[in-house]
Amino acid sequence: MQLGMVGLGRMGGNIVRRLLRAGHPCIAFDRDAAAREALAAEGATPAADLPAMVAALAAPRAIWIMLPAGAATEEALATLAGLLSPGDVLIDGGNSFWKDSVRRGAMLREKGLHFLDIGTSGGVWGLERGYCLMIGGEEAVVRRLDPIFAALVPGKAAAPPTPGFAGDPRAEQGYVHAGPNGAGHFTKMVHNGIEYGMMQAFAEGLDILKHADAEALPPEQRLALNLPDITEAWRRGSVVASWLLDLTAQALHQDPELAGFSGHVSDSGEGRWTVQAAVETAVSAPVLTAALYARFASRDEARFGAKVLSAQRKGFGGHLEPAKPAPGGAVDGKPHPGRPA
Amino acid sequence: MQLGMVGLGRMGGNIVRRLLRAGHPCIAFDRDAAAREALAAEGATPAADLPAMVAALAAPRAIWIMLPAGAATEEALATLAGLLSPGDVLIDGGNSFWKDSVRRGAMLREKGLHFLDIGTSGGVWGLERGYCLMIGGEEAVVRRLDPIFAALVPGKAAAPPTPGFAGDPRAEQGYVHAGPNGAGHFTKMVHNGIEYGMMQAFAEGLDILKHADAEALPPEQRLALNLPDITEAWRRGSVVASWLLDLTAQALHQDPELAGFSGHVSDSGEGRWTVQAAVETAVSAPVLTAALYARFASRDEARFGAKVLSAQRKGFGGHLEPAKPAPGGAVDGKPHPGRPA
Amino acid sequence: MQLGMVGLGRMGGNIVRRLLRAGHPCIAFDRDAAAREALAAEGATPAADLPAMVAALAAPRAIWIMLPAGAATEEALATLAGLLSPGDVLIDGGNSFWKDSVRRGAMLREKGLHFLDIGTSGGVWGLERGYCLMIGGEEAVVRRLDPIFAALVPGKAAAPPTPGFAGDPRAEQGYVHAGPNGAGHFTKMVHNGIEYGMMQAFAEGLDILKHADAEALPPEQRLALNLPDITEAWRRGSVVASWLLDLTAQALHQDPELAGFSGHVSDSGEGRWTVQAAVETAVSAPVLTAALYARFASRDEARFGAKVLSAQRKGFGGHLEPAKPAPGGAVDGKPHPGRPA
Amino acid sequence: MQLGMVGLGRMGGNIVRRLLRAGHPCIAFDRDAAAREALAAEGATPAADLPAMVAALAAPRAIWIMLPAGAATEEALATLAGLLSPGDVLIDGGNSFWKDSVRRGAMLREKGLHFLDIGTSGGVWGLERGYCLMIGGEEAVVRRLDPIFAALVPGKAAAPPTPGFAGDPRAEQGYVHAGPNGAGHFTKMVHNGIEYGMMQAFAEGLDILKHADAEALPPEQRLALNLPDITEAWRRGSVVASWLLDLTAQALHQDPELAGFSGHVSDSGEGRWTVQAAVETAVSAPVLTAALYARFASRDEARFGAKVLSAQRKGFGGHLEPAKPAPGGAVDGKPHPGRPA
Repeated sequence: MQLGMVGLGRMGGNIVRRLLRAGHPCIAFDRDAAAREALAAEGATPAADLPAMVAALAAPRAIWIMLPAGAATEEALATLAGLLSPGDVLIDGGNSFWKDSVRRGAMLREKGLHFLDIGTSGGVWGLERGYCLMIGGEEAVVRRLDPIFAALVPGKAAAPPTPGFAGDPRAEQGYVHAGPNGAGHFTKMVHNGIEYGMMQAFAEGLDILKHADAEALPPEQRLALNLPDITEAWRRGSVVASWLLDLTAQALHQDPELAGFSGHVSDSGEGRWTVQAAVETAVSAPVLTAALYARFASRDEARFGAKVLSAQRKGFGGHLEPAKPAPGGAVDGKPHPGRPA
Repeated sequence: MQLGMVGLGRMGGNIVRRLLRAGHPCIAFDRDAAAREALAAEGATPAADLPAMVAALAAPRAIWIMLPAGAATEEALATLAGLLSPGDVLIDGGNSFWKDSVRRGAMLREKGLHFLDIGTSGGVWGLERGYCLMIGGEEAVVRRLDPIFAALVPGKAAAPPTPGFAGDPRAEQGYVHAGPNGAGHFTKMVHNGIEYGMMQAFAEGLDILKHADAEALPPEQRLALNLPDITEAWRRGSVVASWLLDLTAQALHQDPELAGFSGHVSDSGEGRWTVQAAVETAVSAPVLTAALYARFASRDEARFGAKVLSAQRKGFGGHLEPAKPAPGGAVDGKPHPGRPA
Repeated sequence: MQLGMVGLGRMGGNIVRRLLRAGHPCIAFDRDAAAREALAAEGATPAADLPAMVAALAAPRAIWIMLPAGAATEEALATLAGLLSPGDVLIDGGNSFWKDSVRRGAMLREKGLHFLDIGTSGGVWGLERGYCLMIGGEEAVVRRLDPIFAALVPGKAAAPPTPGFAGDPRAEQGYVHAGPNGAGHFTKMVHNGIEYGMMQAFAEGLDILKHADAEALPPEQRLALNLPDITEAWRRGSVVASWLLDLTAQALHQDPELAGFSGHVSDSGEGRWTVQAAVETAVSAPVLTAALYARFASRDEARFGAKVLSAQRKGFGGHLEPAKPAPGGAVDGKPHPGRPA
Repeated sequence: MQLGMVGLGRMGGNIVRRLLRAGHPCIAFDRDAAAREALAAEGATPAADLPAMVAALAAPRAIWIMLPAGAATEEALATLAGLLSPGDVLIDGGNSFWKDSVRRGAMLREKGLHFLDIGTSGGVWGLERGYCLMIGGEEAVVRRLDPIFAALVPGKAAAPPTPGFAGDPRAEQGYVHAGPNGAGHFTKMVHNGIEYGMMQAFAEGLDILKHADAEALPPEQRLALNLPDITEAWRRGSVVASWLLDLTAQALHQDPELAGFSGHVSDSGEGRWTVQAAVETAVSAPVLTAALYARFASRDEARFGAKVLSAQRKGFGGHLEPAKPAPGGAVDGKPHPGRPA
């Protein structure tokens, strides 16, 4: 089944590769000619621009946009909406804000076009492992493109069956028609919110393991722990077994101190929007929010808020600021006062 | 290799079963005679009391205590310490406080006895899948009991190999000698802390998905999502793939509304001790702590703190309390005021 | 100085009363005729409808809208915008979303009208104590209405002078021209966010004091504390001395158990918007967010997320749910396992 | 009434000064001779060592220890316990762990000595404003020392009366007999926990105000706010009016950017113990905990946990770390993707 792909970056390029391997002809466009040529060498048909892509596809067309959320996606959608014919399908597979997808679906529907918002998880491993797809849009359109989705997902064998599963068989393949437009990106947004929370759970736990030898502890209670071996052991039989743990164990084996990292952590729209969705619908989401805030804090080294605390402490108690990293959890440079004398 | 087991509950009983299946003779004691007899029927040698167990084991003995943390474990350790001979090994496989294990190891060492504190993960699935073991104690003693541990763990095939792994081969089997006494229970404590965080991440994310149709949202943005299918799809190719997700998907397939649960969630010592360890060593652990507090809050329906808020609101603003569950994220019974009119 | 007031509820009515006492003639409108008449009896000039109010005011007019945020305010602004003449001033003194105020200011500016967004703090005490005003809009317009503001604020004597203060003298009276349109409501929004955090700090602290006699503590450490006397003592000389503490002590003296409250706590737009502003500008705001989430949680008694936790616990460990309120911090109905045996 | 003071630092010295001004003769000891002499010059009777202090006091003696919590206090108590006579009173006015005070009270009681644990709030302002005292111990002993306490506290006039107050009149003076030994330090601990939460509420709110001009906001929504004037205005009539706000406004007037502070914030035992008490008694305390963790995080610039996040992100997505301070809340160096194109 023919597919057009707009945006041949890490995600878009690999999606095309996986489709080509499954025998689906792809028309590929990127404003970077080198990216187009690279995929052409792997079997894709390059398109010089969007009109050329539209011309190269037989109706009803399906074009997948894989661009940064925001302006780039908005512009591509608008341009293509002007080029396509009723019955064609536009797919936004990027990390767009779900309310934009609700709006865009309605806008394209007025033009007789179909729209699918597809949350795509899998990262750099998707080419090999397959992608988990969360799809919003009309059921008939999702069904029509089933050959594409079936080629992209990991497939049923990628996980042991859920006992007694009697839901939509597509879910067992690794994709879900989550609902109308917006539902795909909403589901992917929450997926990433959960991802943030799980990552931060590991981050905090490993931080505590790392500090098990802190000077704040009485000497006989200090423990020097081997994090690479611990995380490796957890991969089998434990409750925290997960793909994130697999990746964490691997990273710790390569660099036990993670010295190659600065610890300044980016965040993307989904983490923020998840918190905003929680607030908007009055759902208490302290873990997902704390995970987001930990990323904010990781990038800040002279926070105004912390200066306010120091100013207040000086104001009421005459306290001066400490030398920065109090060793091993000590309080004000002294061992923890609560420890029995 | 002979092992004595004290405590034949859900965990202790299954550990004995798994050892018996691997050909290790087990002497089994529980103060409940029915539990002893049940295991005797499966091949264990029952012991009528602790002296009988000690008599039935050849020196150097190894006795595994699998009792509730606290008084029960403390008493069993004390009793057995008086019955054993130098060179014998006592194992605490329960969820004891790691500082107790540091203390108990030192106390038993003075009597010429060896002590291993073993954090044991695997729950009701351990019999079939194997247990992940986190061990604290002397290396020579851990090595001596290797046949026992090798029979209990899931084994190398239970997970794909970590590329470039060059650590302790035992970690690839599913167990780790984490350090001296205390290290086993410390590592298990943090493991459970991470588990709390991951569970709460899923809980919050699914709660947000569940409320995607909240009245607080404009009608065209409300989404009714199918959680069983979404969680099933996430099991393949997504970043949140994990054993906890497998269990979650299974639970949602059996009961999509989880109507069989009240939502009053227990917590155990490990979650609390993890927070206390973080505080003691000055590690910021907001996610693990929020996960613990969410459990506290789940069990409280008329919290004094919340009444304080209501009293303050009445005090400064004359506000009355709302009817309890404001529908769908509404504010004070009205739709969210921020929504454009 | 003449002022029109639209909305004679708790806040609008008292603002009119305070202005009347200061000698400022007020034209008062409310769709509830009884409210109009009540204020007319206190000296206000009632207006039967908005055109009548406009007719009763001399140009350049100033009309203060004190209605619920959202649709009511939007409609009143739109209606009045069609009735007023260039140079007139519209004031929104309610709790509107600051981005609405940015938008409304621009919209009214196009019609030659002036707009002030005024965050108003003071609640039911404002009539007596005065209101703290946070104003967004043009400086010349703020200056023009200075007699009104000067009558409403508490005045310089309401607090001891800040040593070395050399800022805008109006701030020492209790009002601030915070910036252009939006700045008034933004500042009020953050004010309320801080208020949430302070309230929750007291709520949690008092909850901990209340549980100082918990069964989870060893008997010799259990303390029965007198909260009314403690909060009264804190009012003098302590670091937490504050108006909120004054109100809290008063509430505790009237009802030491706060038995008259259910503990279901409302939240208003400002608390939510504060979190959203933090997320939007990448400011870590864990306290303000936790305070909001505590209110969400206070209104929920059978949270889906908590059921997810219970389902997971049953899935991996066969755990059943506890009887709800585990007494005094006990774990699973048993005393805390970490307590020495 | 005669009092001995051990420890003449910022707190102990000023307490002596305030007592001297009220006509109470004080015997003062500090291991630093200069500190002793300084107070002698102000009217105190210096003691060369603890036996000399005991000799200088008439029975029944009262000795106030004002030393760092932990070893220093423990040693002083032990030494004095050996020097005093039955009926004498030892006071620990420092920031000791409340469980130590329970233990010490029992230990001293066995020797026939009385013990008071007194939480003392007031900081550098206590000399002038008076101290808020939270006292644990026997009622008869508290009554006996009433002249001392009455001289130290701010007195009834320091705050407007609470309407309808009918509690212990001492609370209206600024001190409270909170309960038996431990109750004084428990109450002070929670007081400081609340203080942390209030401080962090202001810190976060001001941080959000500070970032109201962030580049992540659309240009027409960016606001440059005057924090010194805003905090000054809040001091009158607003709900957040408080002594901490007074100090904050003062600090911002002296240094609007707080450029003189690094933002590395100390924490003391009370903040940590408050969280541990909450965990131990199963009270959800997210705000007090978040405030503590914010201080931990303020002192760390290369947190291992954050490096774990970066390593995971590289593992699943090939993401590189960002240049540290993404300007104005931007995501990955780009404006927030959710903003409409």
